[in-house]
Amino acid sequence: MERKRLVIALGGNALGNSPEEQLELVKETAKTIVDLAEEYDVIIGHGNGPQVGMINNAMEFSSLNGGKTPYMPFPECGAMSQGYIGYHLTQSIQRELAKRKVAKEVACVVTQVVVDPQDPAFAKPTKPIGSFLTKEEAEKTAAEKGFIFVEDAGRGYRRVVPSPKPTKIVELKVVEQLVSLGDIVITVGGGGIPVVETEDGLKGVAAVIDKDRSSAKLALDVKADMLVILTAVDRVCINYNKPNQESLAEMNVEQAKQYIGEGHFAPGSMLPKVEACLEFVEATSNGVALITSLQRAKAALSGETGTIIKK
Amino acid sequence: MERKRLVIALGGNALGNSPEEQLELVKETAKTIVDLAEEYDVIIGHGNGPQVGMINNAMEFSSLNGGKTPYMPFPECGAMSQGYIGYHLTQSIQRELAKRKVAKEVACVVTQVVVDPQDPAFAKPTKPIGSFLTKEEAEKTAAEKGFIFVEDAGRGYRRVVPSPKPTKIVELKVVEQLVSLGDIVITVGGGGIPVVETEDGLKGVAAVIDKDRSSAKLALDVKADMLVILTAVDRVCINYNKPNQESLAEMNVEQAKQYIGEGHFAPGSMLPKVEACLEFVEATSNGVALITSLQRAKAALSGETGTIIKK
Repeated sequence: MERKRLVIALGGNALGNSPEEQLELVKETAKTIVDLAEEYDVIIGHGNGPQVGMINNAMEFSSLNGGKTPYMPFPECGAMSQGYIGYHLTQSIQRELAKRKVAKEVACVVTQVVVDPQDPAFAKPTKPIGSFLTKEEAEKTAAEKGFIFVEDAGRGYRRVVPSPKPTKIVELKVVEQLVSLGDIVITVGGGGIPVVETEDGLKGVAAVIDKDRSSAKLALDVKADMLVILTAVDRVCINYNKPNQESLAEMNVEQAKQYIGEGHFAPGSMLPKVEACLEFVEATSNGVALITSLQRAKAALSGETGTIIKK
Repeated sequence: MERKRLVIALGGNALGNSPEEQLELVKETAKTIVDLAEEYDVIIGHGNGPQVGMINNAMEFSSLNGGKTPYMPFPECGAMSQGYIGYHLTQSIQRELAKRKVAKEVACVVTQVVVDPQDPAFAKPTKPIGSFLTKEEAEKTAAEKGFIFVEDAGRGYRRVVPSPKPTKIVELKVVEQLVSLGDIVITVGGGGIPVVETEDGLKGVAAVIDKDRSSAKLALDVKADMLVILTAVDRVCINYNKPNQESLAEMNVEQAKQYIGEGHFAPGSMLPKVEACLEFVEATSNGVALITSLQRAKAALSGETGTIIKK
């Protein structure tokens, strides 16, 4: 029987804020991934919020404060974060495979994702990146580089970039080739390096592509059987943190839309995950999505926990 | 007829010191690569000296001077440089392929390379990395982190790391898979992320693996027909920069060894390239190596220039 194909989206809790912490956390992450890879073909997408933030902050700090290193554009920082996170993930998965004597290759592919310059997100950038600046610093940088800043809850000014929709995964065919050979593939790190199509080829743009959306797009494009979004909770809840909180074993598209309309899912938290699942489920004939925790992913795939989203 | 397989090692002149410069330079580099990829199967290894230096310096500067970012170990900086350089190379090669309407995938694989902890290089680290420190700063960092520093020609103290031999390319099979499908593969960036084998899997070590040596090892392992080392000159010379300078169209292994013995090739410059070629040529039955310039690589492959090293 042909193995089923999963696209797994790893959230921030699967990675870490410093290199030491990340190396420790990914050991646990690797166990889950190998659990799943023993039964399924697996493609991994992952976030990079803290990591690209750190890299961007360090490069910016050094270039502005006498570190004698050049200013580094945001897409390039994203590319660096793919190398950094991909290295840790690859190494940990390889270790776990070796421990279980599973012969399987792990491949981290540097991946660009196309966004549409006409995406309405470009008209109102919302995603804060970089360090907190004073009003004067922010105004100076805005004038020099054309960046947009917003005041952030009394803590200072932060640059904001748009969060456009992914329209195309540039290295899709490479990912397809590798997963078809049975490799565990790591791709669309941080949602992918954001690029736009121009007459002269692809060009990086300062933007953050939601990693769950990129994973949903990937799941569609590789005709995955399931999109698995791993997060900090075992199941999606309605009336979250209220006395009548209720965890969901499954919801269909209509129910999910109803819950979204009723405001059950927090923006920037569970909402984009449910929305990414809907994007995948609605566009496929029989694709199913699963939201569960990193720790209980294996149990969720055998139906013990997790929230299934289906047609 | 089966296409011949080339491993191409790109030197510093194929990349750049800042992101803007690099994006410009890799456009030219991409032309050469696509020239070759139209006729041959191509795997690309590349250096990362200036790039990993910049990343390491920025991360170090920020962590030590109030940038509020964590200290970043050297192997992780190498992983970042693979993402950064790989992104630029991939994008430029894709652009060049599209211009010429050549349907071919480009894949940059985050790549670890194993070194032997017993390698004599670990006993005497020689490769300077990081920024110049004062004597006091160097002594403090040496005590805190166990780093080794050397005084660098009156300019201050710099950390040195070993430059051990590559013994194994961890992601070799992935590279094989992709090149067998006709993809242009970018790998062993900066000589590869240096790791050692431990009972608990691979672990990063602070070291610099010579990219020409890693490319030679790669050429051996993928059974390449030719190792192509691209540098700043069209041909290898003996009596370089002397009145009796002579450029070489070819040399056999014995001649190469004789020239090395006579001190014709500068350490840290042409010498390691010739040595890497010898490592490949001597270990294969019919493998050939070529040293030439990035600009004239195509001409060199049709025999118009370049220096061939063969048995």
